[in-house]
Amino acid sequence: MPTNLHAWEPLAEQALDAATFGYIAGGAGDERTLRDNSAAFGRLRLVPRMLRGTAGGVDASTTVLGAELASPIMVAPFAYQGAFHPDGEAATAAAAAALGLCMCLSTLANTSMEDVAAASGGGVRWFQLYPMADQALNDEMIARAEAAGYRAVIVTVDLPPYGVRERELHHPFALPADLGLPCIPEKSAAAGSPTPVQTTEMMKLDLDWSDIAAWASRWNLPLVVKGVLSPEDAALALEHGARGVIVSNHGGRQLDTTIATIDALPRVCAAVADRAEVFLDGGVRRGTDVVKALALGARAVLIGRPAAYGLAVAGRDGASAVLAQLISETENALALCGCRTVAEACSALIAPET
Amino acid sequence: MPTNLHAWEPLAEQALDAATFGYIAGGAGDERTLRDNSAAFGRLRLVPRMLRGTAGGVDASTTVLGAELASPIMVAPFAYQGAFHPDGEAATAAAAAALGLCMCLSTLANTSMEDVAAASGGGVRWFQLYPMADQALNDEMIARAEAAGYRAVIVTVDLPPYGVRERELHHPFALPADLGLPCIPEKSAAAGSPTPVQTTEMMKLDLDWSDIAAWASRWNLPLVVKGVLSPEDAALALEHGARGVIVSNHGGRQLDTTIATIDALPRVCAAVADRAEVFLDGGVRRGTDVVKALALGARAVLIGRPAAYGLAVAGRDGASAVLAQLISETENALALCGCRTVAEACSALIAPET
Amino acid sequence: MPTNLHAWEPLAEQALDAATFGYIAGGAGDERTLRDNSAAFGRLRLVPRMLRGTAGGVDASTTVLGAELASPIMVAPFAYQGAFHPDGEAATAAAAAALGLCMCLSTLANTSMEDVAAASGGGVRWFQLYPMADQALNDEMIARAEAAGYRAVIVTVDLPPYGVRERELHHPFALPADLGLPCIPEKSAAAGSPTPVQTTEMMKLDLDWSDIAAWASRWNLPLVVKGVLSPEDAALALEHGARGVIVSNHGGRQLDTTIATIDALPRVCAAVADRAEVFLDGGVRRGTDVVKALALGARAVLIGRPAAYGLAVAGRDGASAVLAQLISETENALALCGCRTVAEACSALIAPET
Amino acid sequence: MPTNLHAWEPLAEQALDAATFGYIAGGAGDERTLRDNSAAFGRLRLVPRMLRGTAGGVDASTTVLGAELASPIMVAPFAYQGAFHPDGEAATAAAAAALGLCMCLSTLANTSMEDVAAASGGGVRWFQLYPMADQALNDEMIARAEAAGYRAVIVTVDLPPYGVRERELHHPFALPADLGLPCIPEKSAAAGSPTPVQTTEMMKLDLDWSDIAAWASRWNLPLVVKGVLSPEDAALALEHGARGVIVSNHGGRQLDTTIATIDALPRVCAAVADRAEVFLDGGVRRGTDVVKALALGARAVLIGRPAAYGLAVAGRDGASAVLAQLISETENALALCGCRTVAEACSALIAPET
Repeated sequence: MPTNLHAWEPLAEQALDAATFGYIAGGAGDERTLRDNSAAFGRLRLVPRMLRGTAGGVDASTTVLGAELASPIMVAPFAYQGAFHPDGEAATAAAAAALGLCMCLSTLANTSMEDVAAASGGGVRWFQLYPMADQALNDEMIARAEAAGYRAVIVTVDLPPYGVRERELHHPFALPADLGLPCIPEKSAAAGSPTPVQTTEMMKLDLDWSDIAAWASRWNLPLVVKGVLSPEDAALALEHGARGVIVSNHGGRQLDTTIATIDALPRVCAAVADRAEVFLDGGVRRGTDVVKALALGARAVLIGRPAAYGLAVAGRDGASAVLAQLISETENALALCGCRTVAEACSALIAPET
Repeated sequence: MPTNLHAWEPLAEQALDAATFGYIAGGAGDERTLRDNSAAFGRLRLVPRMLRGTAGGVDASTTVLGAELASPIMVAPFAYQGAFHPDGEAATAAAAAALGLCMCLSTLANTSMEDVAAASGGGVRWFQLYPMADQALNDEMIARAEAAGYRAVIVTVDLPPYGVRERELHHPFALPADLGLPCIPEKSAAAGSPTPVQTTEMMKLDLDWSDIAAWASRWNLPLVVKGVLSPEDAALALEHGARGVIVSNHGGRQLDTTIATIDALPRVCAAVADRAEVFLDGGVRRGTDVVKALALGARAVLIGRPAAYGLAVAGRDGASAVLAQLISETENALALCGCRTVAEACSALIAPET
Repeated sequence: MPTNLHAWEPLAEQALDAATFGYIAGGAGDERTLRDNSAAFGRLRLVPRMLRGTAGGVDASTTVLGAELASPIMVAPFAYQGAFHPDGEAATAAAAAALGLCMCLSTLANTSMEDVAAASGGGVRWFQLYPMADQALNDEMIARAEAAGYRAVIVTVDLPPYGVRERELHHPFALPADLGLPCIPEKSAAAGSPTPVQTTEMMKLDLDWSDIAAWASRWNLPLVVKGVLSPEDAALALEHGARGVIVSNHGGRQLDTTIATIDALPRVCAAVADRAEVFLDGGVRRGTDVVKALALGARAVLIGRPAAYGLAVAGRDGASAVLAQLISETENALALCGCRTVAEACSALIAPET
Repeated sequence: MPTNLHAWEPLAEQALDAATFGYIAGGAGDERTLRDNSAAFGRLRLVPRMLRGTAGGVDASTTVLGAELASPIMVAPFAYQGAFHPDGEAATAAAAAALGLCMCLSTLANTSMEDVAAASGGGVRWFQLYPMADQALNDEMIARAEAAGYRAVIVTVDLPPYGVRERELHHPFALPADLGLPCIPEKSAAAGSPTPVQTTEMMKLDLDWSDIAAWASRWNLPLVVKGVLSPEDAALALEHGARGVIVSNHGGRQLDTTIATIDALPRVCAAVADRAEVFLDGGVRRGTDVVKALALGARAVLIGRPAAYGLAVAGRDGASAVLAQLISETENALALCGCRTVAEACSALIAPET
């Protein structure tokens, strides 16, 4: 049994064919951002506090847009989970729900949002939207998501175009022929083995802030913008009705050499100034990473690749083991930092110069 | 014969089984803090002074809470030394005493504090307390320590909870069945092979600053708080009656990615402002490391793993060789820095930008 | 087929003899600047902007001294291309022209400027001058260049003397006997197998700013000074009539440990203050590198070694593949940064601290 | 034939026994300063100037305490050269003199100062003094040095005590039985195979600034203090009559983790403020290193190990080849920096942030 999140990657490499593993593991260009997302966490040094009554345990629960989570951890909206394991997104969602975490479901899921809702049960779930060129599709998807109990919609803004992902050039990945994309109307039965690049062709290319504003007012679900790295865009998101932003560089999969997300977080949070909730994904592998993100202003973090690896290796049990381990490490890190609650994780925990 | 402290580690690895070696050598998480404690010393650059009359020798003696030491070096309160060598803590204490150094005895020693006192003879010795949930035990231990000539009590505040130590997950360590924990009442004869995690279960989980204050006033021995990294906690320790603080991250064994102790030292010393004595452990491997700690405000340093390795390899002679080498290197470094006494090691020795 | 520009280097190493490959690949001294030119790009972190209408494509076209290019990329004036492939500079020029890029032809080309003009057709082309001691030669070359449709003259100022290039000491390179230097009058038929050092012997050794001023006023072609790293020299170039400067350290081939070109660019651009066009060469290997150069003030970048490697491996097709890939990556990077045009690439794209 | 100074080290390792090579090559402790002396030069980035009339050659000549040198390079006072090659210091001195450089002769030479003077001929030479406990010896040595045409006396102040040099512990070095120390009265015939540590036993241990002042007034030769790293000590040296200081950490052989000499140079030069000449040794391996030292205020640099390696490999010819190569690289670097003379190498050549 792996003793940390890093250790699931080589197991997943054994469990998957090269193309599928490369699709999950790879990043854009020279993969500098892929590596730097994690390395940037390692560069931050903690200055823990003592004797604050945390030795016996802490309360890591929090809320995201009002919904309660057992720990400030969410499953990132990773596409094509049916290609990683037969149980796909249903397994991941069930694992998240059982642990009290939020499941974010990708537009490009291989499981319908209704089936994922069933697997998720009472668990908190959000739906991630890649806006489609056909506006009717977007409205239809959001209506279905709302009906199926998803509590927020994540609009991803950092794709298309598709990044320069060289692992996919060396080992071309395409959706297996037996898998559909049932969250997208008329793609349920057979998606036709599209490559990731082909999938982007149905997306809305002229997306702009007015779309965000229109959707924020038209849809009932609170809207969260994913893919923000600059404080200016975070402010724009709020001006156009977003209730939250996710600081993300798409896991280093889109534009190589972008700033690491944890390095971008402080300026984004300063721009948001508590007017909305800020989330972060990219490079989170340790409980100390979670605490650092909280300390610098994140409401919660999203976990992508490690959950995908757990799913690939052992289905729901694997995803569950990955998430449980991160929950456990996060509680240990909070306790050792002297934080009784997530609210007590503040910027004074980070050493001023490192 | 090893020519430096680093060289004892591989010898100890040969002398010990994997679980015991892993228990000593390992750190928490990705072991970043374990490595950084030493690396941070290496990043500091010395600017020595010349022609100050040190070529013929220096006086490295000092006092710690009034007790005289031949060199500003103490043996850290490392647990379970009976598992490293049959002579256990008695051997380490004898080595320290013969060299004029202070022995700090762990609550979790396999040798009774009375037997260690006998081995230590006229040597300076301090007792380290992991506060127990049963308050009577704490009072009883301190009374015994005082009776046995220990001159201070170190209260460790950065454990529990136990850190995420993965080497122990891969090679589980438990106290050998024939060893007891005779400093703890009723654990003398047979401790029952507890794992380190199990041992923490008898500890006081709701420890807070009021406990420190109560003990500081009730016990005769001066109280030193171990495990402080933030200036705020150092100030709190003094407010609650502590006579000293040990800047420590538990040798990188508790919370990974904490600040290196030598990097934390200056701000702690600024907060203490000479109102109490400040000590440091973690990563000290060279005489230049000792001088850097002194220059940045430490009264003395504590040596853990290298002493444990020396003990494991060759009992008292090994521990003695390790300590003697560090004493010798410290004198050489002081002389080459132009410091006739430890008091002359000041912050001007450290290059302003490195 | 290589998926990035780095990958052409080992292919070229296979295609060429050691001396020729070493001539192309090598740098001066310990090759620190050679490596740092690329590494410096990697250290810069991008902060992209979102939802700016770039998902469907961007317009990467620009102008250089008034001539239109499809992308802000130029072929650097690399010498001796006939030694890399039989088609030499004609192949490189044809590739550049077909892609809408500018070809810069070296004084030390093995193809005449007229033949390169024919291969280039309507493509933009500049002529690079190593000033000769015999002033009549310089005037004659510029007259021929103007007649052959070259639109600017690049005067290289950072050679002679020749740098300390150790690969050439280990594997001496000399021009093959069957190749001439037909851009230089009377060297067309047979150059006599000179080494690169011997070639410098005919150059003007007492070149100074008055020569630049005299040429700028005498010649019709706009003059661009190549080899500037200091803001002072950039200002002097403008004062003496230059219409542009190329921030260059000769690809790390002249003075080792010079500042990386991308690190030198901001101060040069501040000194130029939009009074002339600033270009950059050295270390550009990715579309993100191109965008970073634009963001910090460059009008366009020049590509040397990668184009030479493409030429060596597969003639015009190889050079074309290299350039096309960089064009494609540049468009992708602009789009992912939220830049609809090259003019929108501004310094706010670069993270303030990295 | 080696193409750079680095390449002589492995050749010397082949030519020498392990103990002798280790004596030359080794540093103190973990050899951090040994490595950092060179690495610090590599971290500095040059910003060269163009079109300043240097393409045809430069004038690298300078003066040191009034004596003319062909290049700002001196041979450092390395001990025991008779153990490296039968011709010892005479070969090194002859090589230096023929190239117009200054030879610094160690107190611990195996060749008499008179024989070295004969080999040096009209060459500039300085005598390095390890002050002896017997004051009469010092006066006698200086009188001999003056009589033999040495033009300055270097007083080394950073030894004793001897540094912690572990290579010498692993491979003990002692002076071969057939070699004497003829610069020291009564040690000419047979020194008795002392180890380096034993040699220190005859040195003056209570040396202080009053000794410097007394010697500076009593001796005719100008006095240069070697081993200064702090600006305070540089100022003290001048106050006590020194005419120059050598910024040195004894080649990383004494106190490990001291500041690199090139990093220490600017503050020392600021303290000296042109009232005396400042020299530097440690880590100089390239012509660019020489230019950087000049740019930051050094009058000249001293070369130790590379000259010793050249001597070990090929006697006078080897030492000469090493020195000639550094002279040549220095001229090339000056020319490529746009410096017509050494006086033109100023701090603006160094990039402000690197």
